[in-house]
Amino acid sequence: MKASLIMIGTEITRGIIQDRHGILLSRELTHLGVHVSEIISLPDDGTIGPVLKAVMKSSDIIIITGGLGPTSDDMTRNVIAESAGVPLVRDEGCWDFLYGKLGEKAFGANEKQAYIPEGFIAIPNRNGTAPGFYGYGGNTLLISLPGPPREMEPMLYESVLPLIREKLDLPEAERDEYSSFITAEAKLEELYEEADPSLEWGTRFQDYRISLYVSGSTAEKRNAAIARLRAMVGEDRIVDGDKEPLDLLIDALKAHDATIGCAESCSGGMASMLLTQRAGSSSFMLGSVTSYAPSVKHSVLGVSNDIIGKYGTVSAQCAEAMAEGAVSVIGSDYAFSITGVAGPDKSEGKDVGTVFLGFAGKGRKTETASISFSSWGRDSIRKRSSVAAFILMAAYINGRSPSEIASGWRFL
Amino acid sequence: MKASLIMIGTEITRGIIQDRHGILLSRELTHLGVHVSEIISLPDDGTIGPVLKAVMKSSDIIIITGGLGPTSDDMTRNVIAESAGVPLVRDEGCWDFLYGKLGEKAFGANEKQAYIPEGFIAIPNRNGTAPGFYGYGGNTLLISLPGPPREMEPMLYESVLPLIREKLDLPEAERDEYSSFITAEAKLEELYEEADPSLEWGTRFQDYRISLYVSGSTAEKRNAAIARLRAMVGEDRIVDGDKEPLDLLIDALKAHDATIGCAESCSGGMASMLLTQRAGSSSFMLGSVTSYAPSVKHSVLGVSNDIIGKYGTVSAQCAEAMAEGAVSVIGSDYAFSITGVAGPDKSEGKDVGTVFLGFAGKGRKTETASISFSSWGRDSIRKRSSVAAFILMAAYINGRSPSEIASGWRFL
Repeated sequence: MKASLIMIGTEITRGIIQDRHGILLSRELTHLGVHVSEIISLPDDGTIGPVLKAVMKSSDIIIITGGLGPTSDDMTRNVIAESAGVPLVRDEGCWDFLYGKLGEKAFGANEKQAYIPEGFIAIPNRNGTAPGFYGYGGNTLLISLPGPPREMEPMLYESVLPLIREKLDLPEAERDEYSSFITAEAKLEELYEEADPSLEWGTRFQDYRISLYVSGSTAEKRNAAIARLRAMVGEDRIVDGDKEPLDLLIDALKAHDATIGCAESCSGGMASMLLTQRAGSSSFMLGSVTSYAPSVKHSVLGVSNDIIGKYGTVSAQCAEAMAEGAVSVIGSDYAFSITGVAGPDKSEGKDVGTVFLGFAGKGRKTETASISFSSWGRDSIRKRSSVAAFILMAAYINGRSPSEIASGWRFL
Repeated sequence: MKASLIMIGTEITRGIIQDRHGILLSRELTHLGVHVSEIISLPDDGTIGPVLKAVMKSSDIIIITGGLGPTSDDMTRNVIAESAGVPLVRDEGCWDFLYGKLGEKAFGANEKQAYIPEGFIAIPNRNGTAPGFYGYGGNTLLISLPGPPREMEPMLYESVLPLIREKLDLPEAERDEYSSFITAEAKLEELYEEADPSLEWGTRFQDYRISLYVSGSTAEKRNAAIARLRAMVGEDRIVDGDKEPLDLLIDALKAHDATIGCAESCSGGMASMLLTQRAGSSSFMLGSVTSYAPSVKHSVLGVSNDIIGKYGTVSAQCAEAMAEGAVSVIGSDYAFSITGVAGPDKSEGKDVGTVFLGFAGKGRKTETASISFSSWGRDSIRKRSSVAAFILMAAYINGRSPSEIASGWRFL
């Protein structure tokens, strides 16, 4: 199934406003397994006529947004009717709706908003006066929606996506949602095909996680596929539902009514920034030390110069001492540490992406984990280090072993 | 003059990333009087071939971004050569540049980045390995640029827009570029119209700054307008050229061969994260303490319980003690502190957006500045606090008074 998206608005092609429908529509269609072969923004000047004709030759679905207003340059409805080879006719349901909303004002410029191409079906618009409509031009499903996001978006979710699902013979949303951490999106796509190519999978990249969807077949088959995928990447890397890595840690802290602190080196404050990002984080986050220079590791966190001299700052020993130092100086119940090489150059003879994490808690034996991230750049190594620390700290608080978990991780 | 814009990237048509080139290119072309008749996003799968052929019939200028990378699905250069009816040939200038950048690695997948369509002219890329190029296919000017914004954008301003101006017989771009900090983009647009509505102004939002440019009329008139704008917002809020706020601080530190540390509360590690974001930041950044809990302000930074009890943690007194504590425990030449109310709720009876900054240095009298940010949300207050700290710390290092500067700031 191939789809084309056409967004109409002179404000877009003049660079005044950013089109946002393209990304939303393409994401949702991609989730349904539809291939979006082009996203086109056009001015209000009628260019849509020849473009629509050309695009209809190769598309199964065309979604057009905008150009349904009452002004004379809003000519989408005419162009679609022409492309479908039918006249515009007044839809009585639309007219009643329009009259109900506008009263006598419905006569005049707005009146044409009650007209849709003959044989097409109206799509109700609960936030505006212009209904959308859909129908066929040749073999192509043509869907027309108004441009304003607050009108278009509810229509998309309430009418258009269910319609496309139905046309695709997709079962009613039997869909499971997961969150995947640290694995690159391209790699995840490769792995889920390996786990079960017969299912429909989808991903959506978010800042610190990838949302993962699987649908099709039976719940049993989907569960088996997720179990295989989990085994491939390792424990705690794919969790149920839409969760940020920070949620795992916050859940563990709340369950144990515990506070946290941290000591960072290569991540430089990123973990601390994330731990304090949400309102109310002062209920569990006490503080953090970014010990970027070795001297600060020693003077503030109390890492011995012996450790720094003998093992270097990028070492399990240093991570352990940093985490213990953080518990001691910050006074939190638990603390983690992050020290490693964010790049772009090697450091202390260690490769870019080498990261040691430490996990300490009052009355608990300190543990460490070592991870070798592949390098996708400095920022990404810092992000993945913070994410790994959150996941493994949550496990540690719950009485599990971070080093064992991390040693089973693949595709980092 | 009619232009078409083609953006290539499967991440765009899959709804993973938002295309941002379309709005930028169309805005700049519209400024030059060029009519943008379509903005098209396409996947990496070769669809560009037929689309380019169709679009060439009606466009005087086509700008294509993306698809110039070393991987096999990056086929833009082949398609353009084919459309222009010429072979790809190795451009010796590009090859020398590529070899200079990559050494022996230039042989192999990257090698094709030195090939451009015969008769086309290379466009230098100072932030990447793929040069752009331009030339004619029939009567259409074809311009190809790489996809990554940090490569494409300088090439647009330095090469492409001057080229189009020349083709259009427009006078040399008399254009001045500035960076504006903390002011909201909409407010800036309002203020520059007040400063001089007869000039052409433009803004571009970036994460921690707004790029601002002004063109038209004489240099004298533009300078007078910028002086008025600067007077409206206050010192150091609009600086020459394309600069991040962090650049001001790094410049000051390098000029004085000095090191820095910081103590954060409401910003929660964001300033530290930014100070360590770039490669090589260990040459000036020693470390930071996120003292989120009052107990950490006391135990790690040595803020007296008297100050906390009498003035609260959101106070000039606490900011002062935090900055002095940071210089003392981190051992850096200078340190700043940030304490305030990021929201969403009031704290210690202080309004959301109330922020106190402290500035200390070895052998220098500590200073503080107080700022009342309008609230655009928690994240924005944290960001603007960090930006303000960088700007004012730079001023302090250069011997100026942060409190005087900040007291003249408007539109925060």
